Parts: sequence; C-alpha cells; structure tokens
Amino acid sequence: MMNPMRTAITDLLGIEHPVIQGGMQWVATAPLAAAVSEAGGLGIISALTQPTPDALREEIARARELTDRPFGVNLTFLPAITPPPYEQYVAAIIDSGVRIVETAGAKPTEAVAAFKAAGVTVIHKCTSVRHARSAEAIGVDAVTIDGFECAGHPGEDDVGGLVLVPAAARALGVPVIACGGIADGRGLAAALALGAEGIAMGTRFLVTAESRVHDDVKHAIVAGSETDTRLVLRELRNTSRVADNSVAREAAEVLAGGAEFSEVAHLVAGARGRSVWETGDTEAGIWTAGQSMGLIDDIPACGELVPRIVAEAEGVLTRLTR
Amino acid sequence: MMNPMRTAITDLLGIEHPVIQGGMQWVATAPLAAAVSEAGGLGIISALTQPTPDALREEIARARELTDRPFGVNLTFLPAITPPPYEQYVAAIIDSGVRIVETAGAKPTEAVAAFKAAGVTVIHKCTSVRHARSAEAIGVDAVTIDGFECAGHPGEDDVGGLVLVPAAARALGVPVIACGGIADGRGLAAALALGAEGIAMGTRFLVTAESRVHDDVKHAIVAGSETDTRLVLRELRNTSRVADNSVAREAAEVLAGGAEFSEVAHLVAGARGRSVWETGDTEAGIWTAGQSMGLIDDIPACGELVPRIVAEAEGVLTRLTR
Repeated sequence: MMNPMRTAITDLLGIEHPVIQGGMQWVATAPLAAAVSEAGGLGIISALTQPTPDALREEIARARELTDRPFGVNLTFLPAITPPPYEQYVAAIIDSGVRIVETAGAKPTEAVAAFKAAGVTVIHKCTSVRHARSAEAIGVDAVTIDGFECAGHPGEDDVGGLVLVPAAARALGVPVIACGGIADGRGLAAALALGAEGIAMGTRFLVTAESRVHDDVKHAIVAGSETDTRLVLRELRNTSRVADNSVAREAAEVLAGGAEFSEVAHLVAGARGRSVWETGDTEAGIWTAGQSMGLIDDIPACGELVPRIVAEAEGVLTRLTR
Repeated sequence: MMNPMRTAITDLLGIEHPVIQGGMQWVATAPLAAAVSEAGGLGIISALTQPTPDALREEIARARELTDRPFGVNLTFLPAITPPPYEQYVAAIIDSGVRIVETAGAKPTEAVAAFKAAGVTVIHKCTSVRHARSAEAIGVDAVTIDGFECAGHPGEDDVGGLVLVPAAARALGVPVIACGGIADGRGLAAALALGAEGIAMGTRFLVTAESRVHDDVKHAIVAGSETDTRLVLRELRNTSRVADNSVAREAAEVLAGGAEFSEVAHLVAGARGRSVWETGDTEAGIWTAGQSMGLIDDIPACGELVPRIVAEAEGVLTRLTR
C-alpha cells in the first residue's frame, strides 16, 4: 500500500500528514505549533495571542528555532470597537517569511490579497458552504470547514460535520479541511471518506503534553464526555461552544432572560479561557471546548499523537477494504 | 477485494448491504420497505402508521407478497394520554413471523422481552450513549444511534454524529448503526470508519420513487440545502427537526414567547407531515426532514439507490487505500 495519507492538503502545505492544529487563542504558541509540525502535521501559531506585531515576529522566530518544518500563523478577524492593528500583523507574518496562513472570522479580502501577493498559501476557516464559496472567490487556497461539533465559534447554522463537510467538498474547487468533532484516527478516516483532504483539531491538541493549558483543564477534558459542552451567546449571534460549567450556565440563563450583553460581560470576559487555562480552575470562567471531549482519553505528546492518529486511520481504512 | 460491505449488521440481519431504511411514520409502508429489502438493504414498516394491529398484520402480509427478503417492523413507544394497544401490536408482529424489529422511544423493556422470547432480532433506536447502554442491558441485539443531524427526534443532547457514533461504538458491545446526516456512499464509508456496522437513512429513502410522499415534497427536498431545517419543541423537551417553513417558524416563535403546548397544538398537529406529504403543500404544516437534505439531489428508485450508495462507499474506501 502506498501512503494513503498523501492528499491535496499534504501536497499544498508540504507536510507529511493531513493533520492540522487549530490556531487557538492563547493556546497556540510556538512550542505547541512546533511540536505538531515536528510530528509531521501542521502547527499553527495564533497571531492575536501575541500582544503586538513585534511580539508575533518573536514568536515566529521562536518556532523556527524549534522546527525546520512548515508551520502556519492564524489571523482571526473579529468585530471590535478598537480592533488590533491587523495590517501590522499581516506585515509581521509576511516579513517573517511564514508560508502558510489560516484566516478566520470576517471575510478577509484585503489580507488575502496581501498574503497572495507575497506568495503565502492561505487557508480560510469558516462555518458554512456560503462563506466557503465566498472565500474561494477571493482566492484562498483551501478552506477549513468548522462543523457544529467544534469548540469556539460554530456559526449560527448548526449543521453537523457529517453533512457540512461533504456539502462543502461538493461545492468547492479548493481542498476542504474538516474541523469539529474529530480527535482520533476514526475521525480522520471518516473526514477523508466525506471528501475532506485533511483534518484540523483544536480540543485534541489542547490536551497534549506540549499544550500550555493547566493540567487540571486537560484532566477535566479527559474526564468529560460528549455531552459536557454547551452553546452560549446565541442571542448575540456570536454563538460559542464552551465547557458546560456553572459560569456558562449562568450566562446562558441571564441572556435567555433578555439581558443585554453588558450584563454578562463579566462572565464572558474569560471566554477565551485564559484565566481558567492558566489557573486550572475549570469553574472560574467560561472556556471553550468541543464535543470531541467525549473521544479524548489521554494526554499524549504531539510526537506520539499525530502518528497514532494516522496509523489508526490507515488501519481502519485497510480493514474496511479487506 | 472481498466484499467490504459485509459487517456485523449484514450478518446479524441476513441482508446483503448494511443499509437500513428508517421506520418513518406514515411513509414506511410495505411498498417502500419491500423495495429497500429487494435492493439488498433492510426495509422497515412503521407499525403505528397502521391504525390497528390487524391492519399491521395485513401490511406485513403485503410486504411478503412483494419480497422474499428480510424486512423489519418499527414500533415506537411515545408518551400519550391514550396510548396505542402496544401489546397487541407486539403480538401482531410476532404472530406474523417478522424476524427483525426496530424499537424506538421510551425504554421498551417488556416489548424487548417478548420479542426476544419469540426469537426476534431487536434493534433499538436512540439518541445518546446513555440510552444505548441501557438498551444493551435489556438485551437488544443492535443499536441505531441517531445524531443531531437527523430528521424527527434528535433528543436533547445535540451531539453530532461525527462524535456520537464513535462514542457509542466505543461504549457498546452490540453493533451500532449510524443514523442522521447520511444520504450517500461517502456517508456510508464515513459511518463504517467511525465504527458503525451499518447506516439507517430516513430522508434519503423518503425521496425515492417508491416513497408515497407527494412529488412536490420530494422536489422541495431536492431543491433544499443543509440549512433548510430547524428544531422545534425544544421547550417541551420533545425536540424535533423539521423543514424550516413558515409554520415551523410560527410554532418556534410562539413557544419561545412562553406559550403552552396547547397554544401551538394546531400547528404541530401536522408534525408527522401527513397532510403535507399527502397534498405536497410544503407550507401547509410542520413536516420532518433531516440535514441530509443538503446531500439529496435526485429521486431514484430504491433498486438504483442502494447499490449506488454501496458502490460509492466501496470506491471511496478503495481510493483512500491506494
């Protein structure tokens, strides 16, 4: 058997395995990204986790010290009263010689044009076929499609990956990366069967030895099941999938009662999980987690995890054709 | 290559392909069930679509005239002020010599005992790992697990099939059948990769030549996308996935405003789709449809559809191991 894990995505990105680490806010720093890339996948650094464009330059340099393999940078465009200096982050990424960028959030027309002009490969992450088509039209090289199961922002359509991934694969000319609800080799094999050319995983890489989140959070995810997440902020059309803890339930209840966002801002301030992830107190704030929680049973090193997932996928596919 | 589509489910049920037709209320009558069984899958007759146990005996006899192959009967246990005479339906199924039953709804302890005592193979359909374990404990032979994407009753946990199917496969000793969001060979291949031993499909079989629903409904599903369904009745903990039409939106709005069920009963009376399915007026009432709507593009005969799905799944799996 030839390597079945060679896909349009491994070719496009110049990586060994079609396994990508999600550019998680606060979590996706150089050590994790480099560990994933060293394991043959694609590690991704979260740009906005770095407080300034110069800090991002340093983080990219740090990753370079840790791996010679390709890695990417995530740049997420969110609505904000005082937005980050996006143009300067774009410049920092291009100047640093990064060859792969993952964009997310609002339609990144100008940033994509800048990246493409600099020869950077762009993957756009989105949550609907409509947005994926729109991203393809502005010239991205691939699309990561985030299904309903995913941590963080699943969008407002609530379409499960079993349907959304093949629907996207049918509709697009560029390769599709499946994200949401995938944490093992069975998920990788299923994603490829559905027409994806690779997978991206957030929660699974959050629970690895190289992830900087507190061990107590990792253990909470290992102990949790697929029913231990919930959606919040639907009322604001900014739906987020988070761990189902007391703070998330309180925010959900207050918002369901018709409260303005300002009334729950103190609860949601920890929505990026930073305080929880630093302290390990899983009831101290809202923190993101995906339904793949139900499939995560251990805290491996990335160098063990990535080959294990690929070997499991190969084993599953081989058994099904024997 | 040997037949990769031989699985624990094809062996258990004595069928050629691991493809099962959901026992849809009003839709799953003898002609459809027989057509699916003739195609090598497992057709299922909906017991409660027949007004009396004697009518069910006649419907079973009618299926026997149409096929010599195995078929099953679905018996769904729903809360009701005046429940149907379940014991008499159980007796009609057993007396008619049916060898395969699909139970659904409330934990069917007594019915399962009666079926097992008569040597009938029982598949229980449910929407969570917890209920699946409970069904396994009372002796069912297989479990159909309905993910969030499914038409009708997805339960209250909202876990997508990409996670729920492998979580169930890990937790159970009996074979798992994946249902919800599956409508083609990619879905079959993905389900097998996730650890299922077969698939069940409702919406896909609703849109076939042999299905008795009005052609206008079939065409509406062909025209629809994966975003054209919605959930209703969450407030009553009786969540249903239905086509997103004006009646469903009205019911959702009234219930979100705190209305009692009695205030929307006139809207929900058509919840089983009967009037819509008979008349083809897709705005005349609430009718069930799954997210697989986005993957359904034609109205084939079952004798074309089932082999096509299997061939597509085999092709996908073969390409992935080459």
